[in-house]
Amino acid sequence: MVERGIPYVKGHGTENDFVIVPDVDERLDLSPSVVAGICDRRAGLGADGVLRVAPSRAGAGPGVRWFMDYRNADGSVAETCGNGIRVFARYLVDSGLAMPGAIPIDTRAGVVTARLGRTGEVTVDMGTARLPDLGPVEVTVGDRTWPAAPVQMPNPHAVVFMDDLEEAGDLASAPKVTPADAFPQGVNIEFVVSRGPGHIALRVHERGVGETRSCGTGACAAAVAAAVRSGRRPETQAAAYVVDVPGGRLNVSWRPDGHVELAGPAVLVADGELRAEWVTGIFKCQPGGSVPLWWG
Amino acid sequence: MVERGIPYVKGHGTENDFVIVPDVDERLDLSPSVVAGICDRRAGLGADGVLRVAPSRAGAGPGVRWFMDYRNADGSVAETCGNGIRVFARYLVDSGLAMPGAIPIDTRAGVVTARLGRTGEVTVDMGTARLPDLGPVEVTVGDRTWPAAPVQMPNPHAVVFMDDLEEAGDLASAPKVTPADAFPQGVNIEFVVSRGPGHIALRVHERGVGETRSCGTGACAAAVAAAVRSGRRPETQAAAYVVDVPGGRLNVSWRPDGHVELAGPAVLVADGELRAEWVTGIFKCQPGGSVPLWWG
Repeated sequence: MVERGIPYVKGHGTENDFVIVPDVDERLDLSPSVVAGICDRRAGLGADGVLRVAPSRAGAGPGVRWFMDYRNADGSVAETCGNGIRVFARYLVDSGLAMPGAIPIDTRAGVVTARLGRTGEVTVDMGTARLPDLGPVEVTVGDRTWPAAPVQMPNPHAVVFMDDLEEAGDLASAPKVTPADAFPQGVNIEFVVSRGPGHIALRVHERGVGETRSCGTGACAAAVAAAVRSGRRPETQAAAYVVDVPGGRLNVSWRPDGHVELAGPAVLVADGELRAEWVTGIFKCQPGGSVPLWWG
Repeated sequence: MVERGIPYVKGHGTENDFVIVPDVDERLDLSPSVVAGICDRRAGLGADGVLRVAPSRAGAGPGVRWFMDYRNADGSVAETCGNGIRVFARYLVDSGLAMPGAIPIDTRAGVVTARLGRTGEVTVDMGTARLPDLGPVEVTVGDRTWPAAPVQMPNPHAVVFMDDLEEAGDLASAPKVTPADAFPQGVNIEFVVSRGPGHIALRVHERGVGETRSCGTGACAAAVAAAVRSGRRPETQAAAYVVDVPGGRLNVSWRPDGHVELAGPAVLVADGELRAEWVTGIFKCQPGGSVPLWWG
């Protein structure tokens, strides 16, 4: 029997949703089966992932107090998550674990800095965009084919411009990319339309997932590709875009130093506690289920 | 600004999931937009429906203390929900609002009695099954057609027996029923296989919804059809079936008096409170959003 429930906060960033689990004393053994159980949208609480709030790891650097231990809904460990960082930072300020301002956050992909006030949007420095020269790349959905612009954020993206997002059709299965070996690690594909000067809208197919409500790095890649397409380079002229995604609105800024900043909402929906007897039930399902969930 | 958050409990019955909202003083104005916001699986908490716990309505009868105010995920009012009643009854006992035993519950479809202990399964009297004579009825999925047995529980069902549940194929779109006017109000379709004596398994396509993880009345209809198919009538021999659904295991008993009893799990996953500022946000989206969520 698990002796204590697990406190949590449910939140989302442009409808990419998370269960935040504070673990400031690092006493929680968040096994893959428990994470998968929490994220189960019928039998559990339901989310795209879990954000465990833990003290920063050794060597994270001065002033870096918190580590975002991000887990995918299937229980696997993930490097980081652009929408997740905003929600994580909002939780830190909301709970009093950090003061408003610039907050460096330790992630498996390195330290990321979020900027936020007591309320409102959260801005995250997403690093430098790269525009690899891969030669002509094309994306095909059904019987339609478009040229695509490759962008690394640093994860791989292919950005397609079109006149109407409906043209992309059904994105349930992965679009075809030509040449097939252009992105050996797979690629996220953004389908983008212009909504006017400095304003784009997109749909996104995330590698290994399918069409999603939002993709933070995808919004950045789309804005960078749109800036390049309109002849702008950040060294000479900063480029700022409003980016509408199915789950809401993001703001992307390509700074003169080449860094891309992503600003967007982070919403905390509810607080609560997962029941100890329920956690015991899902914990028992795994090998080694006799190990206590809480250490010490 | 909504002044107070909304306390809730998240639970499920064979993976049909609900947000239970206690409102014992009837002070909560649970508008359709708030219900839809709560049930949104990305931007809200996520559920198949909301169960508001309210005092029984006038005329519900002696000893009937509680009314299950069931709302669909889209915010619309629904008559009742077989899996929801189990979760509702488990909440009543868990919270101390009712003692273990036989608990009559007021619903929009009449008073339903649930039986339960301090832990374990919940048994619900689902009423009498009827076997209407509609002449030959057939169900078609793709290029496969099967004869179907109509059962009213009292909602309409068509039960198809097959050798392998895979045969039913992709149930994303509604199966075709012949004759087309056999069920003027639409029909839930159960695809059923035998797993041995007194043991069946099913997949279900619910009218207006699609394939689901569980359907309480569907499990009852399938068990009744299986009993009839094996030559049993409840007047001469009670029929009991274990019914495996995609979301878990149910037990159905067709009693000598013609009533069907459904027993199954009811799991309370987590407790919590929806944040006042979040509720304010979704409440503002509706006409009349200046009305306070909490009365008095």
